[in-house]
Amino acid sequence: MRDAGRTRRTVLDAAARTVAVKGTAVSLDAVAKAAGVSKSGLLHHFPSRDELFLALAQDLAEQFVAAVQAAVDPRDHAAGRLVRGYINATFNEIAHGVSAPEQVMLAGALSSVPGVDRVLREHTDRWEKAFEADGLHPDRVLLIIRAADGATVAAIYEGGANPEELQHTRELLLRLSHGEGGL
Amino acid sequence: MRDAGRTRRTVLDAAARTVAVKGTAVSLDAVAKAAGVSKSGLLHHFPSRDELFLALAQDLAEQFVAAVQAAVDPRDHAAGRLVRGYINATFNEIAHGVSAPEQVMLAGALSSVPGVDRVLREHTDRWEKAFEADGLHPDRVLLIIRAADGATVAAIYEGGANPEELQHTRELLLRLSHGEGGL
Repeated sequence: MRDAGRTRRTVLDAAARTVAVKGTAVSLDAVAKAAGVSKSGLLHHFPSRDELFLALAQDLAEQFVAAVQAAVDPRDHAAGRLVRGYINATFNEIAHGVSAPEQVMLAGALSSVPGVDRVLREHTDRWEKAFEADGLHPDRVLLIIRAADGATVAAIYEGGANPEELQHTRELLLRLSHGEGGL
Repeated sequence: MRDAGRTRRTVLDAAARTVAVKGTAVSLDAVAKAAGVSKSGLLHHFPSRDELFLALAQDLAEQFVAAVQAAVDPRDHAAGRLVRGYINATFNEIAHGVSAPEQVMLAGALSSVPGVDRVLREHTDRWEKAFEADGLHPDRVLLIIRAADGATVAAIYEGGANPEELQHTRELLLRLSHGEGGL
């Protein structure tokens, strides 16, 4: 069981890397090779291309949920604590995660896989409920979440990331999550 | 001269469509075919793959500048008029332009082409100067621009666009550009 889980994890990570660069047109042979498993080993876990990419989308969405939960400060009990976790997880990811072009290429490529829209809408509904319980005004949440997501793609539209501006944006959004920010 | 300009335009539009779907790995033959021109006709205007994709990035950045200028209300003389043009151009594009996955695939694919980072940084500098002259506090501009860009990619991360939420976000950002918004 543990080995099976490990193989599944290895294949999903390899799929994320290869799809980010080559899109969903990538061959399952290439994914298997990148994962260091046999094609039949891959097919044992993911019987078809669509099932692999659907599982990948689900996995990425769940990894982000886990990253946000890990970024919530356990000593923070004020309204907006989940939003602050979202801000910090997003900017940590920009600073240390896969590059912005790879991340959007991956998300864009997966968005055309059958069933991915449904998985993402379910996650969106869960986020919405969680933010409702977080205590900030919905407009404030919408603004902060959209701006954080915009910061993720800014590197693509602006010819590279600007670390100082990213830090400034993170702090601006954190202030907004406390009901401050001078706006 | 007019024909040459027309061919150039046709090739750039075809390149945008094909790169959005297939990435920069697309063959110049495929671009020429999509444009309805001969390969040698294409090479006459764009002697190499990198020159074509660099010209495409420049063209897309200039098209967006033109769209924002067209969206500025000539009767609007208050601070933030350019920011309001940016908001309206962005949300018009989300509603009527190429799909969000195609747009980010295109931007992501072009970001790896040599020279594109420089072109985009020049445009970013020009936007920055133009926003400085627009009269809003820089943090307010940053927040609005990032949130508008985030709205563009939201459809990808959330399994599809939500027209009502997009309209709500547009109105929220317009209110913020007037120094309102209850934040």
